[in-house]
Amino acid sequence: MKGKKQNKKKVITTIGGGTGQFVVLSGLKEFRKKFNFSLKAIVSMADDGGSTGRLRDELGVLPPGDIRQCLVALSESSLTMRKLFNWRFKKGNLAGHSLGNLFLSALEKMTGSLEKAIEEISLIFRIQGEVIPVTLEKIDLVAELNNSEIIYGQHNINTSKKIRKVGIKKLCLSHPAKANPKAVEAIKKADLIVIGPGNLYCSLIPNFLVKGIVESLRESQAKKILVVNLMNKIGHTDGFFVDDYLKIIERYTFPKMIDIVLYNRKKPSPLLLEKYKKEGKPPKFRKVKGVSAKFYGFNLLSKQIYQKDPGDRLYRSFIRHDPKKLAKAILKFL
Amino acid sequence: MKGKKQNKKKVITTIGGGTGQFVVLSGLKEFRKKFNFSLKAIVSMADDGGSTGRLRDELGVLPPGDIRQCLVALSESSLTMRKLFNWRFKKGNLAGHSLGNLFLSALEKMTGSLEKAIEEISLIFRIQGEVIPVTLEKIDLVAELNNSEIIYGQHNINTSKKIRKVGIKKLCLSHPAKANPKAVEAIKKADLIVIGPGNLYCSLIPNFLVKGIVESLRESQAKKILVVNLMNKIGHTDGFFVDDYLKIIERYTFPKMIDIVLYNRKKPSPLLLEKYKKEGKPPKFRKVKGVSAKFYGFNLLSKQIYQKDPGDRLYRSFIRHDPKKLAKAILKFL
Repeated sequence: MKGKKQNKKKVITTIGGGTGQFVVLSGLKEFRKKFNFSLKAIVSMADDGGSTGRLRDELGVLPPGDIRQCLVALSESSLTMRKLFNWRFKKGNLAGHSLGNLFLSALEKMTGSLEKAIEEISLIFRIQGEVIPVTLEKIDLVAELNNSEIIYGQHNINTSKKIRKVGIKKLCLSHPAKANPKAVEAIKKADLIVIGPGNLYCSLIPNFLVKGIVESLRESQAKKILVVNLMNKIGHTDGFFVDDYLKIIERYTFPKMIDIVLYNRKKPSPLLLEKYKKEGKPPKFRKVKGVSAKFYGFNLLSKQIYQKDPGDRLYRSFIRHDPKKLAKAILKFL
Repeated sequence: MKGKKQNKKKVITTIGGGTGQFVVLSGLKEFRKKFNFSLKAIVSMADDGGSTGRLRDELGVLPPGDIRQCLVALSESSLTMRKLFNWRFKKGNLAGHSLGNLFLSALEKMTGSLEKAIEEISLIFRIQGEVIPVTLEKIDLVAELNNSEIIYGQHNINTSKKIRKVGIKKLCLSHPAKANPKAVEAIKKADLIVIGPGNLYCSLIPNFLVKGIVESLRESQAKKILVVNLMNKIGHTDGFFVDDYLKIIERYTFPKMIDIVLYNRKKPSPLLLEKYKKEGKPPKFRKVKGVSAKFYGFNLLSKQIYQKDPGDRLYRSFIRHDPKKLAKAILKFL
């Protein structure tokens, strides 16, 4: 019955979406026991492309894609579940749908809520952590461009060629939406909050547009880490320096929110950069003044090159963080 | 190291398909420990209607529907899994598909075989027994009618109005198919084999049309029980007496194959019979000579009336066996 404060289980909460969050969760999961922490993943609900978009349209469900990736990352046997949940139909009316998306959407329709669907799946597949939709309301992402034009929908914002020419001025939601109370709780209870890596405008920012998230981040005592992307995205973050990511994140949250900025300082090979130049260039580090966050550079680069899943119709990044290296860097600050 | 022959785990093998096999497996599953036996379910692969038919056409998979029902019956938590696997999409391109059918078909495509798909699902959902497709080849059921007309496909045979007028002369497969070696083994190793209940021409007989099944039944030392349906099916088994089921089964297998015939001797209420007269009438029992099988009548009737799953487009029987009563009757002969 003696106080064992030092052994209290800590909470790490990640905020993001897409494959970036998959990578950070896959890495952190392996260290849960050694470092005695539990994992909570707050997931963007703005996705409307590919299989996810079709399910939203046809069934009126919340977007399953990013939730699916987090569940896979946190499953006990992530290899089997990854194969299973990320497997996509290649023929007929079902072409393009991943089995995990269908499973989540069916369970949402069946149980009446995405939260219950996630609970059921977490039980069946022994998920090691909590996966939390940032909101349970249907949201649509809207971008105002620098020429005042408006683009609706995350997928359009992600792929628009116009944005490449003009640039994004501001992101908002088409209608205001409230945060999922569990997301608020996960932020308040966290000892460490990890934002990113991930598509800045399409996976990270949408989380902060939901009412209640920024407010609870302000109240949270947790140390807050921003993981900067490996590569700038053409049309979205061209020519960004490492500190520009911080600037944008704090524009949508509040100044001095971030305590620590983690960036990769290992250059991808020239061959890789040439091969995948479509993705843009790596953000460079420069010293900046008047910034309270501390910058730490590590080798975070994965040696493996991502292979596209057959049937996946979306473009996904090929140069990725190494889950283990990234987790180790993050855990230096727990 | 002393011989404990009496305690040797026995094997009960069921042969069938459709909801009839679901009922018999659900019932038997509950008595596995008390009676120390393991369960093996040999499942017809002739189904081509509804969601199953569309998946066969679009993806070229083996029919998942009857396999799904057996997996649900044998799952540790059959209520959750039943809800999950039998849940059907109601809108869009996916309308009519059950989640379990999609799951099985995706896994078959992913692993390259229906058997491996069943294995994976059996692990994930802790299946209490073995579910065995009668054949791993694609088969199509063909009926020759009494006027020599031919009807192709199980679904057509099940629903054809012509059959109602003319009657079935003979069933066969469009192409010869070999039995799954695991089905042969399950028959050879069985202590008790249970055939039926189930749609006589569409769920039971198709199993015997596969090469190797009748041969292994002939070699098997197991006691063989035929469970007679509660109701005759208009157009297929109109006016059948209990012994007519035996006659047809032995026509497609061999004379004197069946040791025991179980039939229901509890009449459904007149109200129920009137309400569901579309299903036909119950087969009557009569004494017959020159038959080696023994006939046993029990109250096997379920008090619950089956409720149709929303989204299910197929007609299914409303008057059903009570799983527990049926299992108890069967286990008298183990």
